Amino acid sequence: MDSVRIREAKEGDCGSILRLIRELAEYEKFSDQVMITEEALKADGFRENPFYHCLVAEIFPGPGEPQGQGIGSKIIKKVAEVALDKGCSQFRLAVLDWNKRAMDLYKALGAQDLTEAEGWHSFCFKGDSMRELAGK
Amino acid sequence: MDSVRIREAKEGDCGSILRLIRELAEYEKFSDQVMITEEALKADGFRENPFYHCLVAEIFPGPGEPQGQGIGSKIIKKVAEVALDKGCSQFRLAVLDWNKRAMDLYKALGAQDLTEAEGWHSFCFKGDSMRELAGK
Repeated sequence: MDSVRIREAKEGDCGSILRLIRELAEYEKFSDQVMITEEALKADGFRENPFYHCLVAEIFPGPGEPQGQGIGSKIIKKVAEVALDKGCSQFRLAVLDWNKRAMDLYKALGAQDLTEAEGWHSFCFKGDSMRELAGK
Repeated sequence: MDSVRIREAKEGDCGSILRLIRELAEYEKFSDQVMITEEALKADGFRENPFYHCLVAEIFPGPGEPQGQGIGSKIIKKVAEVALDKGCSQFRLAVLDWNKRAMDLYKALGAQDLTEAEGWHSFCFKGDSMRELAGK
């Protein structure tokens, strides 16, 4: 059986992280929204006051047929650990309403759909509207 | 006419910030979800690698009747400036679907409702489910 190790990302992981971001965006049909580069991922995540933190899952293949690894659950459990250690009272995930597989997993792990339950919508200011607002 | 100044929050503002958080939560009918204390606001926002940054609007009353100050728009414009200066490609706001006044303002300022347009839902892991996930 394969084994999975969850660890903090290192700067050298940014190429692989970008590949996974692109694969996810393709699945979500938002490939045209991926503007980030490997250099920006390095700059934003690996400096003082980083913009993001990242966990990666390493898979060490074992003997026999590959099986479902439950990597999603394992990473979410690790996020819960980190969040509690840092004193967070909650953590949130954004998910597309047609991504039933992800929604079912999150619900099975104890998450609440705040959009459905309380009516929260996510509003976004992007490029042109940001620049117009800032007068730039 | 009154004048409004938008500035970065200071540690000494945390009492007023908590009062505003409570007033907003009351308006949103989520007073029971406000767990934060003034001490936690100070600890989380005013240390190295702070959890949040905060802008406050100061109003200096002028002669005559008080008028609409457009404080919401002014703060959002300042957020757009800060976001651009920091190299952000977008910024997001969470808003309740019945809060038409806020939604109309955000749309008028150029925001897109990602929940409506693309189907994004906000999933949340809170207290008990977090602790269960983390095995704590």
